[in-house]
This record gives sequence, C-alpha cells and structure tokens, in this order.
Amino acid sequence: MRLALDPPLDPGAYAHVHPIRARFAETDAMGVVHHASYLLYLEESRVAWMRERGHAYAELRTEGIDFAVIEAFVQYRRPVRFDEVIDVHLAIGKLTRMTMQVGYLLTVAGEPRATAVTVHAGVDPTGRPARMPAWVQDFVSTALG
Amino acid sequence: MRLALDPPLDPGAYAHVHPIRARFAETDAMGVVHHASYLLYLEESRVAWMRERGHAYAELRTEGIDFAVIEAFVQYRRPVRFDEVIDVHLAIGKLTRMTMQVGYLLTVAGEPRATAVTVHAGVDPTGRPARMPAWVQDFVSTALG
Amino acid sequence: MRLALDPPLDPGAYAHVHPIRARFAETDAMGVVHHASYLLYLEESRVAWMRERGHAYAELRTEGIDFAVIEAFVQYRRPVRFDEVIDVHLAIGKLTRMTMQVGYLLTVAGEPRATAVTVHAGVDPTGRPARMPAWVQDFVSTALG
Amino acid sequence: MRLALDPPLDPGAYAHVHPIRARFAETDAMGVVHHASYLLYLEESRVAWMRERGHAYAELRTEGIDFAVIEAFVQYRRPVRFDEVIDVHLAIGKLTRMTMQVGYLLTVAGEPRATAVTVHAGVDPTGRPARMPAWVQDFVSTALG
Repeated sequence: MRLALDPPLDPGAYAHVHPIRARFAETDAMGVVHHASYLLYLEESRVAWMRERGHAYAELRTEGIDFAVIEAFVQYRRPVRFDEVIDVHLAIGKLTRMTMQVGYLLTVAGEPRATAVTVHAGVDPTGRPARMPAWVQDFVSTALG
Repeated sequence: MRLALDPPLDPGAYAHVHPIRARFAETDAMGVVHHASYLLYLEESRVAWMRERGHAYAELRTEGIDFAVIEAFVQYRRPVRFDEVIDVHLAIGKLTRMTMQVGYLLTVAGEPRATAVTVHAGVDPTGRPARMPAWVQDFVSTALG
Repeated sequence: MRLALDPPLDPGAYAHVHPIRARFAETDAMGVVHHASYLLYLEESRVAWMRERGHAYAELRTEGIDFAVIEAFVQYRRPVRFDEVIDVHLAIGKLTRMTMQVGYLLTVAGEPRATAVTVHAGVDPTGRPARMPAWVQDFVSTALG
Repeated sequence: MRLALDPPLDPGAYAHVHPIRARFAETDAMGVVHHASYLLYLEESRVAWMRERGHAYAELRTEGIDFAVIEAFVQYRRPVRFDEVIDVHLAIGKLTRMTMQVGYLLTVAGEPRATAVTVHAGVDPTGRPARMPAWVQDFVSTALG
C-alpha cells in the first residue's frame, strides 16, 4: 500500500474546490448516493483541477503523460442524497518521481461527508511508467500530512 | 428513425436467452433498477449471443468489424428489483447491408418487465461504415415483425 | 409504443438548455462516450429544467408526484468525446392526463450529436398512476411535432 | 482509517470465489476497465457470498440488518480488459461488534489484477448502527492478517 495521506476535515487545507450535483442515477435503493459514485466525483474534480491549472486533457496527451489510478481509498462519513451539491476539495499531497497522491474532502453545505485519497502513476501513451511532469511539483500542498 | 421492430412478449419468439442478476449498484432511490441500467443488460446479452455463436469480441476485431449502436429504444413495463434474475431474450430482427436491428424481451420468472430494440451500424476499426458480415444473416429471425 | 415525438435539429425549437461535461468514466474502449451514458445526461437535464421552473425534487415529493420513465429512445448521430461540453436542449412535447413526452437535442459547439425522447408516467409515492400536475401544461411546446 | 487488512495474493487464503465477466460499458477510453467498476465487482461478490451462505438480501432485511460501506480501498495491479472473466476471491478478515472488514483478490486466469478491502458497519432499517449478526462470526478467516 502506497497510500500515505490523511486528508484533513478543514476545507482551508485544500487548494482547489469543484462543485458537483448528485444525479438520481447515482443513488441506490438505500436512498442515498451509491459508494462507487464517489470515485466519479473524485475523477471529475481532478480533471477540473488540471484544466484550471492549464493542463487540459488534450494538452496532457500532447505532453505524452497520463495519470493511471493505482490505488484509491474512500472513507464514507455521512451519506450524500440526490440533488445535493457536493463541494469536492482537492490537494496534491505527496509526489515521488513516478507517483502522485491526491487528497480529497467532500462537503455538502460545509459539512464533511467523505474523505478520500487516490494514488496515480505516470504512464506514457503506450502504458509504460513515465516520470511525473515538472508542473505537478508546483501544486504540492504541505497541508496534507 | 430506423427503428422498425415490435418485440413480442412471447419468449418463444427469441432465439437466444441470457440470464443477468440485477446488482445493487444498478438500483436507484426509487428502490428499483434505474432505467439506464437496462442498456447494460442489452449489451451484455448481445456479447453473450455473439460469443455463443462463435464470434467472440477478439475474433470480431480480427474480422475488422464492430457494431456501433445508432439507435436504442426501451419500453419499461414493470420494475426490476435488486437481486432479481432477468432473462434477456434476444433475436436479430432486421438486416440491411449496413445495419442490424436486435429485439429484446426481458422477463423475471417468466413475467415481462421490458422490451427493447437496438439498431447497429457496421463500422471498421477506423470508425467508417462497413458491411454487415455474412454470418449475421444466418441468425435473422422472422418472428420479430 | 407511445413514443410520438420527432425532435428537430434546430436548437431554437427547445425551451431549455443545460450544459454537461462528459466524464472520463462515461467513455468506453471505443474511445467515445458509451451509449448508456446519454440517458444520464437526459435525466440530469430534466431535473435541471424542473428546478429552474420552480419544481425541485424535494417539492415534487411534497406535491406527491414523480415521473417514472416508461419509454426511452435515443438516436446517436455523431460520437461525443471525453471532456466535451454537451448542450442538452429540452422541450415538453406531448402531454396526456397521465403521461408526458420530452424531446431532446444534444449538441457540442452547435453540432448535433444525438436526439432523444423520453416518455414519463405520473406516479404517486406508492408507485400508482397519478395525473400529470397542472404546472406541466404551461411548458408544453408546439415545436416538437 | 479503520482499514486493517492486507489481502494476500494467494487465492488459497480466500474462502469464497465468484466469477464476473467484464462488460464493455465498464471499460473507458484507456481501453481497460475503469477503476470505479471494481467496486461493483466487490459488491456483487459480497452479495453472492451471502446468498451462498444462506443469507440472501430478502432475508437480511427480515433479520433487520444491512451492511453500509464505511471505507473502501482498491489497489490496482494490472488492468482488466473487456470480456475477461475476473475471479473475485473474498474472505471476512476482521470483525468487531459493529463492523466487518472484507478482503478481496481479483484474478484473471490465475493472475492477480487487484486487491481490495471494504469496511462495513451494521445498520438497522432506519440507518442507525446495529450489531453485526452472529452468523458472520462463523465466516471469519484468520488468513487475512
């Protein structure tokens, strides 16, 4: 297990926030958002973060880098319901030559609902390991333990 | 609209049947299977039908043909619940040089829950239109009006 | 089949538009958005339309009405790719005492990618048929044939 | 983080195995199964395990117990491709009065593709914490460290 972040419950510790409204299709028969849907929210938020930092998907492909998910962890604290707007707070928390760890806090109206960590490996277009691009270094936060 | 099949409610009209058990993740907050999940059941059944007829996915790629979905229609008759086993009955109902129509009847314990039609276009690996392969002709049923 | 709309390709025929950015998780191994994902876009757009018209989900439940999907049809015209922003144009096209038909046009940068129709039945909280609420009548468009 | 299992790579350490064939809809534009789909495989396997042990979903509801996911961890080792059959090996690895940890090994043709852990809390029909039922104790494996 490479996972080595402990995402704090304070939104102020995160550099980026992205709002997502829970879809009806993402709920389940328990009446709340299904636990697998959270991974879609994390991914959408990473893509939004990169876009806002000037590294949209099309450009990444030009740079010859992709970020494969090699580990994912979610801690579900309180359920999310249909039509609630989830603020996905995100920070880059740990960087090695070949991997990047991203920490997340999901809140609804300021209340924590979940925390999460994803670990990514750099891969080139053929799927082989690739070094993390230099620009990622600029976004590493020291607030994520 | 190319859609031109009227799938009958008699399972005997279908050449192939494939059982699928509804996953919890496929339900929604109404307590039943979400309407988008049905398209996943249709697709799994088409793949199973082709595999059993000797045309598994890997072979299709070798043959240089794929079947893009160009139209899809589902009529939801009665809800499907978590953990129910859905028998997806399938038949090839209409074939032109470039398109194929597939009809479906979904039953649970013999009771109709939905009918559906998908229309497919032959495409080559570059995404351009391609002729339907000759072997599909062998499976056309005349029972789907 | 109750389906009786022919959604036009002119965005001007639709009363409402809702933008959705395609998620990576919604693509498939063909490199484009999977055909089942379109139903999620239609649903999100219906919910957004109702919210903007003053009938958010919570209120509908208070009114004692829900709109079950009884038929769905999608015509896929050109693929949608990851990270493209889809404008989902929507109009209420046909209303009976117990059912409502909704027409959709999906465009990317003004270019049509798909059209769709969903047919809904009013249901009360116990799942039994219910009359369409009067407010829906105000939004019926005559532009959808 | 309650997560405290280290799922071994030896299939012999797991008491239960459940095969699942990867659907096309579960792949993404990288050409492999999307990382969120793995959570669906874990859930289907848990449900199958409980059914085979005589505790099908309907019965659990009668017993007044449900198992909410409070943590989930997946380690992705090698990609899974469309139409591959995944053997999901499962074992109950740690039990407290209120929680249960489940360990998983996913293999394709004997080759490890992923390991995972889910942590569950017992909840009663109103969503409040409930004690783990006694029958779960019978299935705890000591092989999951």
